Amino acid sequence: MEIKATEQPSRVRAFRGIVTPMVTPLRDRDSLDVAGLERLVEHILGGGVHGLFVLGTTGEAPSLGYRLRRELIERTCRLVGGRVPVLVGVTDTAFVESVSLARYAAEAGAEAAVLAPPYYFPAGQAELLEYLRHLVSALPLPVFLYNMPSHTKLDFEPDTVRAAAELPGVVGLKDSSANMIYFHRLQTLFRDRPDFSLLTGPEELLGETLLLGGHGGVAGGSNLLPRLYVDLYEAACRRDLNAVGAYHERIMAISNGIYSVGRYKSSYLKGLKCSLACLGICSDFLAEPFHRFRAEEHAIIRTHLAELGLL
Amino acid sequence: MEIKATEQPSRVRAFRGIVTPMVTPLRDRDSLDVAGLERLVEHILGGGVHGLFVLGTTGEAPSLGYRLRRELIERTCRLVGGRVPVLVGVTDTAFVESVSLARYAAEAGAEAAVLAPPYYFPAGQAELLEYLRHLVSALPLPVFLYNMPSHTKLDFEPDTVRAAAELPGVVGLKDSSANMIYFHRLQTLFRDRPDFSLLTGPEELLGETLLLGGHGGVAGGSNLLPRLYVDLYEAACRRDLNAVGAYHERIMAISNGIYSVGRYKSSYLKGLKCSLACLGICSDFLAEPFHRFRAEEHAIIRTHLAELGLL
Amino acid sequence: MEIKATEQPSRVRAFRGIVTPMVTPLRDRDSLDVAGLERLVEHILGGGVHGLFVLGTTGEAPSLGYRLRRELIERTCRLVGGRVPVLVGVTDTAFVESVSLARYAAEAGAEAAVLAPPYYFPAGQAELLEYLRHLVSALPLPVFLYNMPSHTKLDFEPDTVRAAAELPGVVGLKDSSANMIYFHRLQTLFRDRPDFSLLTGPEELLGETLLLGGHGGVAGGSNLLPRLYVDLYEAACRRDLNAVGAYHERIMAISNGIYSVGRYKSSYLKGLKCSLACLGICSDFLAEPFHRFRAEEHAIIRTHLAELGLL
Amino acid sequence: MEIKATEQPSRVRAFRGIVTPMVTPLRDRDSLDVAGLERLVEHILGGGVHGLFVLGTTGEAPSLGYRLRRELIERTCRLVGGRVPVLVGVTDTAFVESVSLARYAAEAGAEAAVLAPPYYFPAGQAELLEYLRHLVSALPLPVFLYNMPSHTKLDFEPDTVRAAAELPGVVGLKDSSANMIYFHRLQTLFRDRPDFSLLTGPEELLGETLLLGGHGGVAGGSNLLPRLYVDLYEAACRRDLNAVGAYHERIMAISNGIYSVGRYKSSYLKGLKCSLACLGICSDFLAEPFHRFRAEEHAIIRTHLAELGLL
Repeated sequence: MEIKATEQPSRVRAFRGIVTPMVTPLRDRDSLDVAGLERLVEHILGGGVHGLFVLGTTGEAPSLGYRLRRELIERTCRLVGGRVPVLVGVTDTAFVESVSLARYAAEAGAEAAVLAPPYYFPAGQAELLEYLRHLVSALPLPVFLYNMPSHTKLDFEPDTVRAAAELPGVVGLKDSSANMIYFHRLQTLFRDRPDFSLLTGPEELLGETLLLGGHGGVAGGSNLLPRLYVDLYEAACRRDLNAVGAYHERIMAISNGIYSVGRYKSSYLKGLKCSLACLGICSDFLAEPFHRFRAEEHAIIRTHLAELGLL
Repeated sequence: MEIKATEQPSRVRAFRGIVTPMVTPLRDRDSLDVAGLERLVEHILGGGVHGLFVLGTTGEAPSLGYRLRRELIERTCRLVGGRVPVLVGVTDTAFVESVSLARYAAEAGAEAAVLAPPYYFPAGQAELLEYLRHLVSALPLPVFLYNMPSHTKLDFEPDTVRAAAELPGVVGLKDSSANMIYFHRLQTLFRDRPDFSLLTGPEELLGETLLLGGHGGVAGGSNLLPRLYVDLYEAACRRDLNAVGAYHERIMAISNGIYSVGRYKSSYLKGLKCSLACLGICSDFLAEPFHRFRAEEHAIIRTHLAELGLL
Repeated sequence: MEIKATEQPSRVRAFRGIVTPMVTPLRDRDSLDVAGLERLVEHILGGGVHGLFVLGTTGEAPSLGYRLRRELIERTCRLVGGRVPVLVGVTDTAFVESVSLARYAAEAGAEAAVLAPPYYFPAGQAELLEYLRHLVSALPLPVFLYNMPSHTKLDFEPDTVRAAAELPGVVGLKDSSANMIYFHRLQTLFRDRPDFSLLTGPEELLGETLLLGGHGGVAGGSNLLPRLYVDLYEAACRRDLNAVGAYHERIMAISNGIYSVGRYKSSYLKGLKCSLACLGICSDFLAEPFHRFRAEEHAIIRTHLAELGLL
Repeated sequence: MEIKATEQPSRVRAFRGIVTPMVTPLRDRDSLDVAGLERLVEHILGGGVHGLFVLGTTGEAPSLGYRLRRELIERTCRLVGGRVPVLVGVTDTAFVESVSLARYAAEAGAEAAVLAPPYYFPAGQAELLEYLRHLVSALPLPVFLYNMPSHTKLDFEPDTVRAAAELPGVVGLKDSSANMIYFHRLQTLFRDRPDFSLLTGPEELLGETLLLGGHGGVAGGSNLLPRLYVDLYEAACRRDLNAVGAYHERIMAISNGIYSVGRYKSSYLKGLKCSLACLGICSDFLAEPFHRFRAEEHAIIRTHLAELGLL
């Protein structure tokens, strides 16, 4: 029997707080670092985050085979055991694979699906909305839209989001565009819909997002320092501008340090996984087309970790 | 027992001629139009093309579920029955899915794999080359590289192609960048490698490609009018400049007519499938995120087909 | 006798506050709306802004002939009469024209030059820095760098800014990239340089810029409602988060209303000039390649102005 | 008394052949290398080219002050003395400066103006057409449109070109987009207008342009080897495919050698000027934001020139 989106529990509707887009601990390109996954889940939940998101960009989902994705979903849901809602990325260029993965996730106990646009073909906004109409009704989980134009080539334009938010089951949006004008425009459009959650992706923008009415963030750095991002969230809730500023500066130090090593745009992901390995939490293996940092970058990351007081 | 790339038959090494990037006839998003597929294969082969390429961009591969992709490979190889080599697109963001599909294709009798860069993450050229090193050695088929930056966000830069061409099993490149300077640069780099096939994607550039030493083309329009593209190829082989010019103009008329209806960048694909349906060859269903042309565009396509003398 | 940058008055060093990037009131493409200019200057200064910037993007500088640019500089400096510092845009693709305009501005009493990268050729960062080295030393005014990649195709990358800030006379940067990660990165780089002013361009980002330590903004909307932007600035100075939020929301209402009419990317500029004309302040003529809003858009702007309580 | 476009001599209407986009020999950023200019003009005309184009991209026009631009126009027209038509780039972000320069050029004896879109503001196509309507009627010379999206951010879309070609005085288009599909599309649109000249910019595309019906090219390399480009043109006129292929390969050798030194996109311009200096023709000084090649690149250019048999 299919679970209907509208019967879902309320933990992801009107969601507020910090979600960790979990890295996927890998032993090699097609097997999980199972012990690392256990340590990582406990490390993250120990920091008090409000949700866990697997198979996002930080989770390298598009680079992972489907068997592995299913194993990761099943193991993570079991490890989390309902302590926080688990969100699962179901973005795919193929409609039927998104449905299949979402069904698996629902059965495993996940509480929401996260969906970026199909990322090969250049769809128009009207086509994108029609795609959402068809797909969302076929998904057994509430859906967060995921705006990620740098990787998908395609924005969810504000009018498209507004229309999609009328579909039963669409509960919020994660914006990773790093375009705060876009984000503020969505906030204005959704002023009358406090149940529709607006979350920011880049952690460098978390401070301002929360100070100006955003509902939360999906912060990659909370794999490493979950408490820092929760602290920032809580400082923003109590309107403590000085504390928010201080946490924001620490996040910028992480960003300018750990995420800025090496030549490529993948520095963030490599720096994050390398740091987790340095701290003994999980393996730093990355699936192709990436690879882990080699000795030289590894040493620089260790220096940054030391400067941040983490070693 | 695994088939080794280097043991492959020679029909795709030093390939010359016209390859049809076959559209995928669909009854709905997850089932083939089987009768249409049979008619389409016979229609294309009847025109004398030199190869058939399934699961490319024109074949909507990224929008199709893996089960359907396998069915299409198996049916097409059986229908073709060795009359021409069948090439299979194995491009995927996940390494293991590319391997899996290529193995299936090899067993089904396909003669080559076609591989564009993984199209989600922004890999650097060094990473792309390392990815090719790992992947090509794991594929049981000769490989054509597929340069398609508009959809993958990533070019195979000339130096990367040159290095990849040293890997056993890499036999050529299809360039769909529409950048003839890039293509000519590759021709210069591969002057001493006539066994490495350089094929062009956009059919609007087929004439000049063949006149100036390119080896062939992967021409979407040869789904519709296979003989026209073969005629152009043969005219170029015999250095008949006037005939090449005339065929080129007919291709431009198709491009300006059938491929230029509607607002979106997908006009080419929709116009092509719509035309095939008008001619009774196969269904015009498109998988999400696209949809077939509706009545208004359908009527315009019919007008263009009539002007081209095809109705 | 040439005025040396280092002898300049201190009003633009360690600048804090709101700068109005003044629209250029035009009677036609080559003559000023002189009466409108007078009204506009008084309107803006009456709102308490801390500086006036002529010949920026909002001022349509690149579309104006040099004679008109000189006339505008001379008249504006005279009208302002030292009440606030006047900043003059000297961005040009030709080095010698930048120098010439800056000399004229210095003699007219302007207090700073504003300089975006030369916007035709794709210079590299090393070339850009060398250009700055040569040009800044030839300019008789302190210089604000102006990051405006959407129009110049070229960013001042953080390391370039850091190096340029060592040149005598470079006093700050206006960032119109709308990329707050870039802005925060600069803030981190310049933590030890409170004398180097970091100003934001897009007014939609003014709230967060000021809450998180930015020094001010160059806000186009302060042509229309100067007091609003000064109020936001003052609220941020006294750390009144609720007031900042309320002013930010009013700015977003302006942005979603007045700046979002019509099809083109120039909606902001046309909406702003149209609004000023509706309020009787100055002409809404725009120089080519733009033109003023026609009747239909004009009516929509009037509706938005009414909704904002401005009519 | 103003010269009317429609009274212009016919040498630029239905133009056919090779135009040299002349580099601007500079002694420093604001003075001409006068002796070099004389040698360069004679060198180019000695090769038999059909037209000379000053103040284009290759001529670094946007980087030159207006006084220098006028001096260059006057000197070049005098040196050419009517042997071939002189075309003058009048592209400018400011309407009135384009008019002013074109008037000067007409009086100096130039026979056509060349006009790219204004390159700062992101105009829409309707605005661009309106701009052309206003500007072309104010110019005293026939006009070639100049499509150069990499530098202007703005294409002349095919429908805009078709509409602009109805304006009296618009006689052709130079396409530097390197997009041959665009070029072929224009050829189809202008099949009934043999008086409207379609010229290609990138010399790497000159062979195919001429083989498939294009009217000529504006080839930077003809500063260096004018006869080569004229030879290619003449071979294409007599339909000698083998000769065209051989000349095309020589051009590709120049492109892969001389134009591919150094890290930046300006390699073409720097390599060209450096080569002219090596051959003793004119100075290699470049105006900011560029600079001439330094010793290391200079040596590489010499090696390439030797390989090409030019030293």
